[in-house]
Amino acid sequence: MAEIVCIGELLVDILAAEVGQSLRAPGTLLGPYPSGAPAIFADQAALLGAKVALIATIGDDDFGEAGLARLRRDGVETRAIRKVRDATTGVAFAAYAPDGSRQFIFHMAEAAPGRLTREDVDPALFADCRFLHVMGSSLFSAGMIEVIRHAATLARNAGAGLSFDPNVRPSLLTRPGVADAIREMAREAEILLPSAEDLAFLLPGRSPESAIEELLATSPQLQCVFLKRGAKGSLYAERGRMVPVPPYPAREVDPTGAGDCAGATFLVGRLRGWPLDETLRLANAAGALAVSARGPMEGNSPEAKLGAFIAETAPLPLSE
Amino acid sequence: MAEIVCIGELLVDILAAEVGQSLRAPGTLLGPYPSGAPAIFADQAALLGAKVALIATIGDDDFGEAGLARLRRDGVETRAIRKVRDATTGVAFAAYAPDGSRQFIFHMAEAAPGRLTREDVDPALFADCRFLHVMGSSLFSAGMIEVIRHAATLARNAGAGLSFDPNVRPSLLTRPGVADAIREMAREAEILLPSAEDLAFLLPGRSPESAIEELLATSPQLQCVFLKRGAKGSLYAERGRMVPVPPYPAREVDPTGAGDCAGATFLVGRLRGWPLDETLRLANAAGALAVSARGPMEGNSPEAKLGAFIAETAPLPLSE
Repeated sequence: MAEIVCIGELLVDILAAEVGQSLRAPGTLLGPYPSGAPAIFADQAALLGAKVALIATIGDDDFGEAGLARLRRDGVETRAIRKVRDATTGVAFAAYAPDGSRQFIFHMAEAAPGRLTREDVDPALFADCRFLHVMGSSLFSAGMIEVIRHAATLARNAGAGLSFDPNVRPSLLTRPGVADAIREMAREAEILLPSAEDLAFLLPGRSPESAIEELLATSPQLQCVFLKRGAKGSLYAERGRMVPVPPYPAREVDPTGAGDCAGATFLVGRLRGWPLDETLRLANAAGALAVSARGPMEGNSPEAKLGAFIAETAPLPLSE
Repeated sequence: MAEIVCIGELLVDILAAEVGQSLRAPGTLLGPYPSGAPAIFADQAALLGAKVALIATIGDDDFGEAGLARLRRDGVETRAIRKVRDATTGVAFAAYAPDGSRQFIFHMAEAAPGRLTREDVDPALFADCRFLHVMGSSLFSAGMIEVIRHAATLARNAGAGLSFDPNVRPSLLTRPGVADAIREMAREAEILLPSAEDLAFLLPGRSPESAIEELLATSPQLQCVFLKRGAKGSLYAERGRMVPVPPYPAREVDPTGAGDCAGATFLVGRLRGWPLDETLRLANAAGALAVSARGPMEGNSPEAKLGAFIAETAPLPLSE
């Protein structure tokens, strides 16, 4: 059975080939790449040898098969992934602006990912579960919020903790209930895996460090925060301790999925009881390798590859 | 006001770049190309100077803007195209097998195209309408069937005829009501613009010629049938007369939209009272030019271009 259960969207990504390319005019696109934040997280955790199950819904089409095949190849338990007959596998289109920002078009809430129901959440999945991992990006509709809350209750009842990545998508925050659901799950989590933008959403007007201190002071069950800072590395925090972690050099080809890979590596290291400093190095290495490949899961790495990378690569200096 | 009203899906197409490329693995894709059979038809008719309106729903996103911009540029009346706030513009993914067959993945019924309602069908649109044109591909759900039937009633009440292209998509025929709706509209049409496959669906086991004779014998209001035969040209039929029309030579780059362009050209020629033989030549020329460009609307042609093409191009011999 699964020690980590993930729940949410299994998508494919279709990516603009050139920086500055618009989604408003014909151009060269690349894909389909298996994607979806919970799926990327599950895949990276499985590559590190963790027993991981993903609860998700796909269409009965080639895009769904592409995602399923990838997850199976990498060792993710896919029995809880349901094919929806009359819906199409979700798709995220992404284009990259010259300033580094990304623009998205999603077929998600109305497509197969939005069809997840309570019946898809088999209580037996949580028998040996240590952590339910939830992505804020999956809380995209009232229906998804209800199903994921149900999964969180089952996980809690089975003695598992909640690992939560707020993964805030500004375009989703205007939907009813989404912002509140993200805030609530952040308050209930044992492990929090935010970005600086996520912290600014949860506690506006504070520095990341101050926000993390506030979260640790006000959420008694919160064990630790692993702040993902992209090209600036990361920051680990528990009560009374903050550990900045320097980044590894990386040639950024595609940033999608890097934070998910870093978070998954952090959670597996913690589950396995790896030394903290090694866990943090491996998590940053997973992020660096993830951005170096085009496609959100194409840079996911098994443990041996991460180990070799940190053995032969010097971290960059810590900035600010 | 519009002399032709079209109703249905305005999509974008995303096309596999290589023949034999699968939608199950990453590869090079090309798009977004404005598409959707009713939109292609409307665009080609507008390029020929007809007053055409399209009733459709799109998302508030770049794909929808791409479609709107194309239709406006080419002169289609777009006031009846509504942006749906919480849905995404429809997308059709297409891949081409070495045997010439095509494989599709659609985000349509659950996306913006499926959100069309009776309120989107403004009765004022039909004030000067001569023909409502309907594509069978638009009859993809119970909701769409109801809305399009409503539009057909309004058109009928305003004295307009029904132009119908069965445009049968085998994957949609299993949905409740779809096959019946296509059969019904084919029985009610004044002008029928089928393919040979469409005729085989409507009247299985007959030759196209025999099926057309049966349709003309049993549907009193049916004025004529324009059978689109792809690389074999076309066949015009009215009671007591069948006119085979030879194809023009074409290097096929992308077959999507060719039948829609031929049908639109036929309908405009008929509306304008162009001589039949010239109408048929221009319709075949529109099909030949359409397949020569990648993207379903990229080979749509204004009248001058069609005229120049038939002036300088010899038709191929009629086959079988």
